[in-house]
Amino acid sequence: MNTFGNIFRLTSFGESHGKAVGGVIDGCPSGIELDMDFIQNELDRRRPGQSHLTTPRKESDTVIFLSGIFEGKTTGTPIGFMVQNENQHSSDYDNLKDIYRPSHADYTYHQKYGIRDHRGGGRSSARETIARVVGGAIAKLYLKQLGISVTAYTSQVGGIKLDKDYTQYDLSVIESTPVRTPDLRKAEQMTELIQELQSKGDTIGGAITCVVQGVPTGLGEPVFGKLHAALGAAMLSINAAKGFEYGDGFDVNRRGSEVNDSFFNDNGKTNTRSNHSGGIQAGISNGQDIYFRVAFKPVSTILKEQQTVNIEGENATVKAQGRHDACVLPRAVPIVEAMAAMTVLDYYLLSKAH
Amino acid sequence: MNTFGNIFRLTSFGESHGKAVGGVIDGCPSGIELDMDFIQNELDRRRPGQSHLTTPRKESDTVIFLSGIFEGKTTGTPIGFMVQNENQHSSDYDNLKDIYRPSHADYTYHQKYGIRDHRGGGRSSARETIARVVGGAIAKLYLKQLGISVTAYTSQVGGIKLDKDYTQYDLSVIESTPVRTPDLRKAEQMTELIQELQSKGDTIGGAITCVVQGVPTGLGEPVFGKLHAALGAAMLSINAAKGFEYGDGFDVNRRGSEVNDSFFNDNGKTNTRSNHSGGIQAGISNGQDIYFRVAFKPVSTILKEQQTVNIEGENATVKAQGRHDACVLPRAVPIVEAMAAMTVLDYYLLSKAH
Amino acid sequence: MNTFGNIFRLTSFGESHGKAVGGVIDGCPSGIELDMDFIQNELDRRRPGQSHLTTPRKESDTVIFLSGIFEGKTTGTPIGFMVQNENQHSSDYDNLKDIYRPSHADYTYHQKYGIRDHRGGGRSSARETIARVVGGAIAKLYLKQLGISVTAYTSQVGGIKLDKDYTQYDLSVIESTPVRTPDLRKAEQMTELIQELQSKGDTIGGAITCVVQGVPTGLGEPVFGKLHAALGAAMLSINAAKGFEYGDGFDVNRRGSEVNDSFFNDNGKTNTRSNHSGGIQAGISNGQDIYFRVAFKPVSTILKEQQTVNIEGENATVKAQGRHDACVLPRAVPIVEAMAAMTVLDYYLLSKAH
Amino acid sequence: MNTFGNIFRLTSFGESHGKAVGGVIDGCPSGIELDMDFIQNELDRRRPGQSHLTTPRKESDTVIFLSGIFEGKTTGTPIGFMVQNENQHSSDYDNLKDIYRPSHADYTYHQKYGIRDHRGGGRSSARETIARVVGGAIAKLYLKQLGISVTAYTSQVGGIKLDKDYTQYDLSVIESTPVRTPDLRKAEQMTELIQELQSKGDTIGGAITCVVQGVPTGLGEPVFGKLHAALGAAMLSINAAKGFEYGDGFDVNRRGSEVNDSFFNDNGKTNTRSNHSGGIQAGISNGQDIYFRVAFKPVSTILKEQQTVNIEGENATVKAQGRHDACVLPRAVPIVEAMAAMTVLDYYLLSKAH
Repeated sequence: MNTFGNIFRLTSFGESHGKAVGGVIDGCPSGIELDMDFIQNELDRRRPGQSHLTTPRKESDTVIFLSGIFEGKTTGTPIGFMVQNENQHSSDYDNLKDIYRPSHADYTYHQKYGIRDHRGGGRSSARETIARVVGGAIAKLYLKQLGISVTAYTSQVGGIKLDKDYTQYDLSVIESTPVRTPDLRKAEQMTELIQELQSKGDTIGGAITCVVQGVPTGLGEPVFGKLHAALGAAMLSINAAKGFEYGDGFDVNRRGSEVNDSFFNDNGKTNTRSNHSGGIQAGISNGQDIYFRVAFKPVSTILKEQQTVNIEGENATVKAQGRHDACVLPRAVPIVEAMAAMTVLDYYLLSKAH
Repeated sequence: MNTFGNIFRLTSFGESHGKAVGGVIDGCPSGIELDMDFIQNELDRRRPGQSHLTTPRKESDTVIFLSGIFEGKTTGTPIGFMVQNENQHSSDYDNLKDIYRPSHADYTYHQKYGIRDHRGGGRSSARETIARVVGGAIAKLYLKQLGISVTAYTSQVGGIKLDKDYTQYDLSVIESTPVRTPDLRKAEQMTELIQELQSKGDTIGGAITCVVQGVPTGLGEPVFGKLHAALGAAMLSINAAKGFEYGDGFDVNRRGSEVNDSFFNDNGKTNTRSNHSGGIQAGISNGQDIYFRVAFKPVSTILKEQQTVNIEGENATVKAQGRHDACVLPRAVPIVEAMAAMTVLDYYLLSKAH
Repeated sequence: MNTFGNIFRLTSFGESHGKAVGGVIDGCPSGIELDMDFIQNELDRRRPGQSHLTTPRKESDTVIFLSGIFEGKTTGTPIGFMVQNENQHSSDYDNLKDIYRPSHADYTYHQKYGIRDHRGGGRSSARETIARVVGGAIAKLYLKQLGISVTAYTSQVGGIKLDKDYTQYDLSVIESTPVRTPDLRKAEQMTELIQELQSKGDTIGGAITCVVQGVPTGLGEPVFGKLHAALGAAMLSINAAKGFEYGDGFDVNRRGSEVNDSFFNDNGKTNTRSNHSGGIQAGISNGQDIYFRVAFKPVSTILKEQQTVNIEGENATVKAQGRHDACVLPRAVPIVEAMAAMTVLDYYLLSKAH
Repeated sequence: MNTFGNIFRLTSFGESHGKAVGGVIDGCPSGIELDMDFIQNELDRRRPGQSHLTTPRKESDTVIFLSGIFEGKTTGTPIGFMVQNENQHSSDYDNLKDIYRPSHADYTYHQKYGIRDHRGGGRSSARETIARVVGGAIAKLYLKQLGISVTAYTSQVGGIKLDKDYTQYDLSVIESTPVRTPDLRKAEQMTELIQELQSKGDTIGGAITCVVQGVPTGLGEPVFGKLHAALGAAMLSINAAKGFEYGDGFDVNRRGSEVNDSFFNDNGKTNTRSNHSGGIQAGISNGQDIYFRVAFKPVSTILKEQQTVNIEGENATVKAQGRHDACVLPRAVPIVEAMAAMTVLDYYLLSKAH
């Protein structure tokens, strides 16, 4: 199941040490002017080596479009694209050929398929998300025409958590910080924590908040296709994601009388006085901001010796080599945005069919 | 999108004040002996009026199977079923015809479809979950043959939260408490809290924990069909669900070195020494227990006057009548189990196709 | 796979000797005024016992809507419906319990599922098409608003074949003949042939032609969702269907120079001078009439002794009892229309999402 | 809808004058040894310029696999692949930029999408079928392990039609004739006819017969996923296909008593004495040979002046340039096989999930 979406559909392919990663976008509306600089910039936001906080592997990650575009515009036919893999040191992974890294994909892929490409994580590599970012970039270009924006930021790294909600920050500063957060003071603390763990060869988890603004009323397909269920599935499909909540989420010690969002006539438009619902009621967007939070576990690849078993089932130890991200959050921000953008566009298109 | 699943698929229909609610189960394996008492018992667990904690509306909720069964066994053809609606006081809802209840489905349904059945919540009524429970009951019967069990319980009501994890409780006592929790002391506190809110016409949120045991290694379809993404979408499709987390979930202040689940040779079988992963690694079950948590908001129907607008967009007030659940958690437990059972069976069947 | 369609989706259930046959229509646009007389009339066209040419089994086939309708209009939520089975003489089928009728579903269902409901054909019974007719009737009501009509007729029974195309007939006379054909002279010959075979306990095949008029340009989803591929799959899913052709179809002894449909400016509108394409070019409707033909084999149930095997694999003989249709064509006409209507509506709704 | 299949799924992309055509195969079983020579040979069978009967355009059509393969075997992850476009004379198509060729995709694509790549047919080009052939080749490799073979041949060109059925020919000679037919005498006549039309700049239609042998009993998903409905949709999705029939098909002047396929005990195995059913009964394979026939219209590109309109809707004339196939049949044979192989494999995998 490497296809995502109902109408706007991304089919993704690629392992870290194959020839290329890429995908096919099907169901993309025709006539979208493709802003190549914007698309490449989105890829650059995902790229390793972009700051001192991320793995210094150099990957240029230049997208090559293979089809679906004519004279700079989408034609409504499938958009094939790829990013070639380069700078592969496959032999770096020789020691992982016969061993399962704890909490990694090694064991479950091997059990499921009976074969696995052990080099660089194979299909479970973070390079897989390149296809998502390309799909998301194109979705964003279309959403922009509709006045819909998607903005994510790191809202927690380890124990350092933003204490205000998104409405109280200037979201335009997010990209100026290497951790991608609108709270400049917390940004520094997060940076320090990540660097500390980096130096120890350890890793740390966190959370990302995402806000979608300008969504019209009526997106969402009850009962199983509720908009937040689709967003949740999208987010939980990202590597290392462990949780999803929208609106008040797990903050459940609330009375109905406290959290019901009262409607009022706001100069002729129906608005709500609060937004505990997170912009979605009964699975359908209500015209308010949609916001949600995604939890990420610490990266499982650590530069410490760990107990494990080999593919014969015998006890063994494993220690990763090379350089890896100590915290996935900063680079996951554009991926969260990409998945949100594709989901919202997909549901927008679906809503037109009803 | 009233169909759930890939191979084992439930299509659901019905409003609270229509003739019936029900569904069609397609892709159910043939030859399953249908234990009607078990199925009815599952429905009874969901039924209102089962204890002093739930709305005293009397609904017998007897399932009638219309097809797909021959001599007590499933035939592999679609299983149509329904539960007739009864005891409807449609006129109780006359005052809601022209008004939107805050944080309810009224406004978004009306905006999306331009028409809505205002009686009893229409399609957004909790009666919709009857179809889920029937589907889940049949899925459980099949899973049982495979040695897979699904057990959920209320792990939080308002500020009262279980402080131990599921391995430290005797799960067999869950059904003996009206709130459905294995912690008998917390059960009392939860009961008191719910009754207090009930008397005030207010409502309260909470969380449910679910454990799936006996799942074989290899279920899950990377990359977009990760097992936890499917479970998340299933849970988030339940009315009032606001969040989903599995394994360590939002407890993200963790180092990789703390939470990686080491493998070891356990008398010839590969096992893990801990289970921070929640039984799923890279989207594929690893043979350990799967566990997750679902957040539920307080029921939006409260017996207090609230500010809102009517369908003309004019400011108005609304106050619900009749008796309603002050806390959805106890009755949501069997629904969480049903959705989990259908998801796991669906992914089990999918795994056979690869 | 008892669900048909992408946006407008029918999920069907039911065996001939279960409690009911029925279905769920999901994705139906809201606000359609349901003309119950029209829907029932469509069912009556499908019903056995409607003329001396069809089996005299008496089935009233009254549809009961269970959900999705409010004050006579569709609400956008799933429309559950059923038709109760009655007048069942299950014991009539006792002799078929352990034996496979040649060219019937008995053998393959038993091999696939390991169990089968032998009474009245079980799931393979023609009663299954009731759900299609209800779905098709609702689709027609919507298409009518768009100015799209769907008309089918019997164009061949055995060797008696209409020699003119649909443009040369008055299609309004179709329903006045028991065989449902616009050629009144051929109608008599067909009737005679069917009656002759009826008296001999034998059966005969034939073909149905269907014309869809008023379809806008642009329906069809290349490359795998070509409109004629969808129509073909829809038609071939009908019991006893053996072939599908559209436009010139199997009449392939043609030069390109003969059959290319020249465009011309027809008072400001682009039209074609001929319609060998059958209204579809490259899988997309071109605004001309869509027409196609469906082949049906003779009913496999004959009142003659036939060689076969029993469920133990031993040679045996079987002879059907009771009264059966000698020719399926007259009753298949409304089913062909229903499948065409649902397909065209589904593709119309899909086209709005792009 | 550029994705085909349920479990074994091909997503296809590419226009004739873009960078590449290709696809992604998802759901392919792991562990299949990829015989690259076989795959390339299948592509060569589809390639133009392979004989004097096909367009002499030179395209090497070498497939490049981008992912999903490790040490020569499939890994169960998506197989991305592409064939680069070369030898493009885009300027040859300048005269088609503003004009619609009769019975071609030009008009409908333009109406649907509001934009089209006019060069070489764009997405509607026969180059799109490259992805199908690659997918089909991999499916064939798997089917071979199961003892299932797929063989197609040209059974009609214009008025020249094979008069015996497939059981009466030596199918191993098919590939030795440029028209791909097992009847060597008719092969010569067909060749002459095609050459004659080629010299006149005209084109001709025909039909292809396909036989699938070794299919186990039980493939097919009633009621809408009947095996022949899936095969029909697959075939009708091929460019220029106009009809599909299986078993007796449109040869409907038959009595039930003539065409019912009697079962008999064939040394312990249940077999049928005839095969009018074409190997499929009630939508499920019965273990006999599956055979069907596909009609193809004459290629719409002819080297003669034709009446048409331009994109302004004004009357105009158009005349194609360059070299084109006078008959699509010989090159369509491997495409019919590819689609059949993918369909049968997909349904084989589906059958394992039930």
